[in-house]
Amino acid sequence: MKARVTIMLKDGVLDPQGEAIRHALGGLGFGGVEGVRQGKVIELDLAGSDRAAAETEVAKMCESLLANTVIEKYSVEIL
Amino acid sequence: MKARVTIMLKDGVLDPQGEAIRHALGGLGFGGVEGVRQGKVIELDLAGSDRAAAETEVAKMCESLLANTVIEKYSVEIL
Repeated sequence: MKARVTIMLKDGVLDPQGEAIRHALGGLGFGGVEGVRQGKVIELDLAGSDRAAAETEVAKMCESLLANTVIEKYSVEIL
Repeated sequence: MKARVTIMLKDGVLDPQGEAIRHALGGLGFGGVEGVRQGKVIELDLAGSDRAAAETEVAKMCESLLANTVIEKYSVEIL
């Protein structure tokens, strides 16, 4: 079973990396880009086939290792 | 309009960051994690409302700046 975790900075937390991308896109002539936020995506190959259990387990992984929940939000998707 | 770009290393390209996460999860007692790949996600706020045009534009951004297409693959999603 595969799980995908998407981790983004919370709204309101400054994202200098996203800002740098926005600036670079402007420099390359891409107009109309009003905002950019960059985050991480982590794809996990999991043993087992219980989707609900997997979702709980992956949420625990996020809380304890994958995300910094002070400044980041995460979402879990079981594929 | 929002677009989400997901950038992952191509299959077969070594992902030391993902490997480090897998190792750390094992150390924290999370069994059953058979593989981990880490990638980037970039969320763009775009002006305009033509979805097809936006998708083409974002694909061009990926080719010219966001992704290193030698070792990375990307997917574009218009939200």
